[in-house]
Amino acid sequence: MNPPKLNRILETALYVADVERSRAFYERILGLTCFLALDRMCALSAGPSLLLLFLRGGTTEWVELPGGRLPPHDGSGTSHFAFAIDAGTLPAWKQRLADHGVPITSEVRWDLGGTSIYFDDPDGHVVELATPGVWPVY
Amino acid sequence: MNPPKLNRILETALYVADVERSRAFYERILGLTCFLALDRMCALSAGPSLLLLFLRGGTTEWVELPGGRLPPHDGSGTSHFAFAIDAGTLPAWKQRLADHGVPITSEVRWDLGGTSIYFDDPDGHVVELATPGVWPVY
Repeated sequence: MNPPKLNRILETALYVADVERSRAFYERILGLTCFLALDRMCALSAGPSLLLLFLRGGTTEWVELPGGRLPPHDGSGTSHFAFAIDAGTLPAWKQRLADHGVPITSEVRWDLGGTSIYFDDPDGHVVELATPGVWPVY
Repeated sequence: MNPPKLNRILETALYVADVERSRAFYERILGLTCFLALDRMCALSAGPSLLLLFLRGGTTEWVELPGGRLPPHDGSGTSHFAFAIDAGTLPAWKQRLADHGVPITSEVRWDLGGTSIYFDDPDGHVVELATPGVWPVY
């Protein structure tokens, strides 16, 4: 039997050393909107997607909520994720990153016509902004 | 000046001990489609989003491509991410996970009306399936 449909990725998590520092980076430079901030985490929206910033070592126990229990999770290292952007905004994004002193570490042109730029967040996580034409599904 | 728009999260990465084992889990049980498989990684699509499975320790050097260079990145731990599902598919997802011997570790009902179920992938990464009504933007 075929599985039901997964519509898309909804949430991506980063594990960070300082939630406030990371929140400031994603809010002020990248323009995400924070609408939930706790000691151990911050939830930011990028369109219909969520970027969750968790304090490293801050979510290693079950969390009891009125509606159920959240399982423990944690991570370390400098992981990678990507945001989708319109092709027409790429020059403005390059300018914005330059204006905020964020070096673009690489730029890749893909066979399908898209372009990706890469830069580091405050923990060294590798953030990518990708225009359409990177993957067969994008 | 306001930043340009980030449309959504495009790619989420997991760092895994055995790419083939993880690929089998996400393909056969969750129904994702793999369309790029290399020694060090596998790219799977979930709708317009990408789940990237990277071998732990397999992407710690720059990768040269015809169109540019991919920065190194890596991660460890048991991280968390979520897929969006339609509310009507929740019972079928529960049945499918049961049929494949994947225990649901928790179920949470959110104030906004959505439901999340949680289960572990082969590395212990905490996978969530979330119906609408979990976040103000979803």
